[in-house]
Amino acid sequence: MKRILITIAYEGTAYAGFQRQENAVTIEERLTEALFQVTGEEIELIGGSRTDAGVHALGNVAVFDTESSIPGEKFAFAVNRHLPPDIRVMASKEVSEEFHPHRVPSRKTYRYRIQRASIQDPLRRAFTWQIHRGLDIQAMKEAAAYLVGEHDFSSFCAAGSQVRSKVRKIISIELTENGDELWIQITGNGFLYNMVRIIAGTLAEAGLGRWEPPHMQEILEAKDRGLAGPTAPPWGLVLVGYEFDME
Amino acid sequence: MKRILITIAYEGTAYAGFQRQENAVTIEERLTEALFQVTGEEIELIGGSRTDAGVHALGNVAVFDTESSIPGEKFAFAVNRHLPPDIRVMASKEVSEEFHPHRVPSRKTYRYRIQRASIQDPLRRAFTWQIHRGLDIQAMKEAAAYLVGEHDFSSFCAAGSQVRSKVRKIISIELTENGDELWIQITGNGFLYNMVRIIAGTLAEAGLGRWEPPHMQEILEAKDRGLAGPTAPPWGLVLVGYEFDME
Repeated sequence: MKRILITIAYEGTAYAGFQRQENAVTIEERLTEALFQVTGEEIELIGGSRTDAGVHALGNVAVFDTESSIPGEKFAFAVNRHLPPDIRVMASKEVSEEFHPHRVPSRKTYRYRIQRASIQDPLRRAFTWQIHRGLDIQAMKEAAAYLVGEHDFSSFCAAGSQVRSKVRKIISIELTENGDELWIQITGNGFLYNMVRIIAGTLAEAGLGRWEPPHMQEILEAKDRGLAGPTAPPWGLVLVGYEFDME
Repeated sequence: MKRILITIAYEGTAYAGFQRQENAVTIEERLTEALFQVTGEEIELIGGSRTDAGVHALGNVAVFDTESSIPGEKFAFAVNRHLPPDIRVMASKEVSEEFHPHRVPSRKTYRYRIQRASIQDPLRRAFTWQIHRGLDIQAMKEAAAYLVGEHDFSSFCAAGSQVRSKVRKIISIELTENGDELWIQITGNGFLYNMVRIIAGTLAEAGLGRWEPPHMQEILEAKDRGLAGPTAPPWGLVLVGYEFDME
């Protein structure tokens, strides 16, 4: 028996998210089907992030155990032959049998893409949130700065989440302009349900001038989802990657 | 009666190309349906480029005549309300009643995107041609230089084309690297059927070292489609835009 770590990229448009569920097609289901084709085993995946319906990934991760004799680094090519073209295993390798993606300190990086345009570019409609009004980028940067560090992010967590602690650490938030796009790139040690999308929706409100940047501090301290902005749409979000502190 | 010029962007993935045809859904069909919703008229479009199935556009053009009282520049927003999200009219304006996109000197710019990677990024699978082997960019640039200028491009025209003269003028070919992508951007005063895709496929052969750059001159002079490389896949191609010398 050996444990394999895979890095997974996918366009989330056609899927009900990463995690397996009844009556809906998910990334996990497609991966386990492909792994069955390759190994003949009913493999159970331990996924890194349970991305939502419509959310994309360039570097989600998963681990699984197998009796297969295929060398760890060969799994990517073997599995890709049985995956639809909107899902690809980008890399694979053998890791220690104790390795578990949720039990090892990690940094995750998400990118949220906003297209600032009066008419949405149809070639990017599945990858950007279109905002037709001008955004004050400087105000958004100032508002974003309040979120960096370790905080209780209850205001930025979808209502109904059952998670015990809502304290998370944001290591960095960077806003960069790329042509008509604004990219919000966030690195942290963990994220609550919908956290990045609620941050993007809240920063957009700052950019639209609905309030002054220091108000972000009040939103954070209130620990009340009702004070933050809307949940930005899933298609603007991509899980860029994972870094594990040890592998 | 007035004549309207529209600029059209679309993702070509779901369509059998621009031009209306029986038993297949095309961009033109969707546009005329939307124009009917807006004007109540059975409008005949004169399209700029008949892009193939799967080919994208950021700036294709079309003109049409209408009795509608909608001001020229308002058509874009009016028509977009009736178009699927993979087609958008990006701009519209009234032009003189004599304006015809094929009778006015114009420059068209196409971009062909190649992703150089062993595993295709699933988020760009509809927009890039994946080549897993390394490409000699310098050799491709040298080979491309032979194509600039006015030439008989018979070697770069799909067999069976009924066009009278195969002389066209390429104003520029630029190869630029963008991350793991190589962009081939070609501006010319007109293009033969499949010409940009055959040029991309032929330049890829130069990049793969199948022949030396000066062989491009022989391919051009042979006026024989059999000597050029394969027709690169449609999904890597985008019609970037049109410039008319007078409007």
